Amino acid sequence: MSNSDNYHQLTRTFQRLSRFSHLSAIASWDMFTMMPPGGSKARGEALAELSVLEHQLLTDANVAKWIAAAQQEDLNDVEQANLREMSRLHHQASLLPESLVEAKSLAGSRCEHAWRSQRPANDWEGFAENLKEVVKYSREEARLRAEAKGCSPYDALLDVFEPEMTSARLDILFADIKSWLPELLNKVVAKQSQQSLIAPTAPFPTAVQRELGLETMAQLGFDFTAGRLDISAHPFCGGVPQDVRITTRYDENELLSALFGVIHETGHARYEQNLPQNWAGQPIALARSTAIHESQSLFFEMQLGRSPAFLKRLIPAVTRHFGDQPAFEESNFIAWNQQVKPGFIRVDADEVSYPAHVILRYEIERALINGDIEVDDIPALWNEKMQAWLGLSTIGNYRNGCMQDIHWTDGGFGYFPSYTLGAMYAAQLFSAANRALPDLNHAIAQGDFSALFDWLRQNIWQHGSRFTTEQLITQATGEPLSSRYFRAHLEARYL
Amino acid sequence: MSNSDNYHQLTRTFQRLSRFSHLSAIASWDMFTMMPPGGSKARGEALAELSVLEHQLLTDANVAKWIAAAQQEDLNDVEQANLREMSRLHHQASLLPESLVEAKSLAGSRCEHAWRSQRPANDWEGFAENLKEVVKYSREEARLRAEAKGCSPYDALLDVFEPEMTSARLDILFADIKSWLPELLNKVVAKQSQQSLIAPTAPFPTAVQRELGLETMAQLGFDFTAGRLDISAHPFCGGVPQDVRITTRYDENELLSALFGVIHETGHARYEQNLPQNWAGQPIALARSTAIHESQSLFFEMQLGRSPAFLKRLIPAVTRHFGDQPAFEESNFIAWNQQVKPGFIRVDADEVSYPAHVILRYEIERALINGDIEVDDIPALWNEKMQAWLGLSTIGNYRNGCMQDIHWTDGGFGYFPSYTLGAMYAAQLFSAANRALPDLNHAIAQGDFSALFDWLRQNIWQHGSRFTTEQLITQATGEPLSSRYFRAHLEARYL
Repeated sequence: MSNSDNYHQLTRTFQRLSRFSHLSAIASWDMFTMMPPGGSKARGEALAELSVLEHQLLTDANVAKWIAAAQQEDLNDVEQANLREMSRLHHQASLLPESLVEAKSLAGSRCEHAWRSQRPANDWEGFAENLKEVVKYSREEARLRAEAKGCSPYDALLDVFEPEMTSARLDILFADIKSWLPELLNKVVAKQSQQSLIAPTAPFPTAVQRELGLETMAQLGFDFTAGRLDISAHPFCGGVPQDVRITTRYDENELLSALFGVIHETGHARYEQNLPQNWAGQPIALARSTAIHESQSLFFEMQLGRSPAFLKRLIPAVTRHFGDQPAFEESNFIAWNQQVKPGFIRVDADEVSYPAHVILRYEIERALINGDIEVDDIPALWNEKMQAWLGLSTIGNYRNGCMQDIHWTDGGFGYFPSYTLGAMYAAQLFSAANRALPDLNHAIAQGDFSALFDWLRQNIWQHGSRFTTEQLITQATGEPLSSRYFRAHLEARYL
Repeated sequence: MSNSDNYHQLTRTFQRLSRFSHLSAIASWDMFTMMPPGGSKARGEALAELSVLEHQLLTDANVAKWIAAAQQEDLNDVEQANLREMSRLHHQASLLPESLVEAKSLAGSRCEHAWRSQRPANDWEGFAENLKEVVKYSREEARLRAEAKGCSPYDALLDVFEPEMTSARLDILFADIKSWLPELLNKVVAKQSQQSLIAPTAPFPTAVQRELGLETMAQLGFDFTAGRLDISAHPFCGGVPQDVRITTRYDENELLSALFGVIHETGHARYEQNLPQNWAGQPIALARSTAIHESQSLFFEMQLGRSPAFLKRLIPAVTRHFGDQPAFEESNFIAWNQQVKPGFIRVDADEVSYPAHVILRYEIERALINGDIEVDDIPALWNEKMQAWLGLSTIGNYRNGCMQDIHWTDGGFGYFPSYTLGAMYAAQLFSAANRALPDLNHAIAQGDFSALFDWLRQNIWQHGSRFTTEQLITQATGEPLSSRYFRAHLEARYL
């Protein structure tokens, strides 16, 4: 018997699990991009069956035994980190009975599928009925996890997406943002109201937008031998590291809305495509957390994509694709693409008002999961918070209010904070990269992103889940997460 | 304990298996239509892992126990038929060790993936190396099956695709065809050489061809809420009955090549979409066999699609999509689309020379699996048989010779005879429908296919695998399979 037999048994089990995750990732991508409506029920059942299988494999008694025994084995640093992640995944799964895993998966598929037509129909009552089922199972999940962890139900869900994160810590970070963001937002809106901008003249044909998107992805290093760009109602990055599937949606009235979506998802995609291939199939090769994932997409979209240097470089490409327009004059083009305009829709929000959308959802989902409110309370709370933050009423406007996002439809409670955590990480990372790479701004203006991407590869991508989030970010930037880089970034760009 | 407990345990197991087959079907469709090359290795491993899982579930000791016990239970006719199919699938799987299932799946994925670039490069040596691996595992499979069944290795593989069929019976059917087809082919070619036809003027843009295909699918009753049309190098019908995925490929120089491919796959698709939904997930709800499946596609493509009445009705649609041309004059258009031209490529072959392509492959694959020849012998044999049947040399022309088909790449030995069996079944079924529906030709000329499709639904589609092939065809047509309807059809249409 070798001195790492138990560890090697575990690597075989997780290898197998990763192959089933591959099929689940592709079938899910297909569900959002390709599947006709008639396939929905059978697909939901197939994916639920696979969830149950994965749950069985992950919670098998042998896995517990091997984990305990492997902790006594002679493992190197990488193996120890992999074992830590295996143990985390095993314990997370072991807290849930198989029946709950299946019921939650089925309720989520049903709710998501119905939501696709309920949202355009503004049918809150129909949606609420399905959502209550989803919330029931998510609360049960949260209760079981919370009991084991000794924390609040919501914190227990947060921990699945964002290990180490707690609502106590989020409250501090978000309280800080709340202390300066409303005033900053007012100042920026007031300042920008002085601008008189020339709007781009539509239409912008979908096929041309797609070409511009593909060209930009190539410039940003997307590997097309290991991924694709498609269309879905709700843009996402899915698939597997060897075959990353990103999506966008096109509006022929909007010049760059789809493109910035593509740039955002390309950030996610490059992280996935550059995860450590030599550990492929093992938990250590997975992305660190949802917030770190968001940090990469927002690094691409906001830190890089909406920087004046990058925007300036976009103009010749935009002109080549759509013909010249007065709106494409440099200062107008940059200002147009840096507009701050509080609105209803999170995914269309500028980076200054974005945290309002996230904190609002965080407060509502936390109350919902902790049992302080019910599904029926959501619309009124949504309206109240939108009024308070952005001065917008969502009364009766469910489709652009509490029905706009896909996350809750399949029980993704605890995900939303990742967006603003990601924005903070992105600002902190960009600041560190800027210090490490003195010619960065000049290189970006030249369209040379190689040093920047090398820096991300060295500091984030290649590590997968080898380090904890706190270790990763401290090694990369010299300190733990701080909101001050995000504030400094917004002030520098918009004031 | 109820009197059908064991049977119900089996239905749960097969329900679960059908959900995993769903994922495998979608991931396979994706592999041929969407997947970038970098995903190939991981996809192959994921599909192999799923094959192993399905094999484990199907060969579980409980399944054998339940089958034995269920045979003593009080089951109705449908349940008994379902149990017969369950037992067949269980026994087929039980003959193979898990290691062989996995090795065969991996070797097949590798060979298929490499073939995609080896075929255009005419790289027989590279291909042969992978094919030898595939043949090794297929021979091993055939040996194990043959030992259990007490038949030749090739017959054992044939039985997987086409239950009850033997090479002895095929030899009689094919000998009959060989006795009259060469002469018929010569006569038709001689007769058609008198024609002076106007060729359609290319190009025919892909997007327009696709529109015509979608419109024709709709007319043929394809349910777009439960299926899609996409592109792949080798057209196929995949997916699941609730979500049928058909593909075609476009050549802008060819007027209707893609369309007839679409009509062919629509025949497969309507069979799938009309399998018995109330038994969904059970073996009895699956299509009867590959030859019956082919009979539906050839019923649509050849019996219906290339009939003068149908072709005549196509002219206005073709003119609307591509503009008018002299080639679209009625008698010219019909004659153009009924041309018999012996050529290299099976999938492009007319229905008169098609059996030559199939019988050639049957003879080679039978010798290969039975160990009478080796992979290295294939090109010479191919050339010899193409010379004898169609007067064409394939020396050095592997890409249009023995490398043209996908079937052998993943070990689908025993499938090819289904094409000509399907053509015979299709002719026999159309003849029976014609007798049952006196106004059929008039209805087709009017574009009213409802009675024809109702007849297929009643006689074939709704039965799934409830009856054996022989029962099914005898009930539908009054007699077992006979080659005389196929011969009569070819003589009536082409002489």
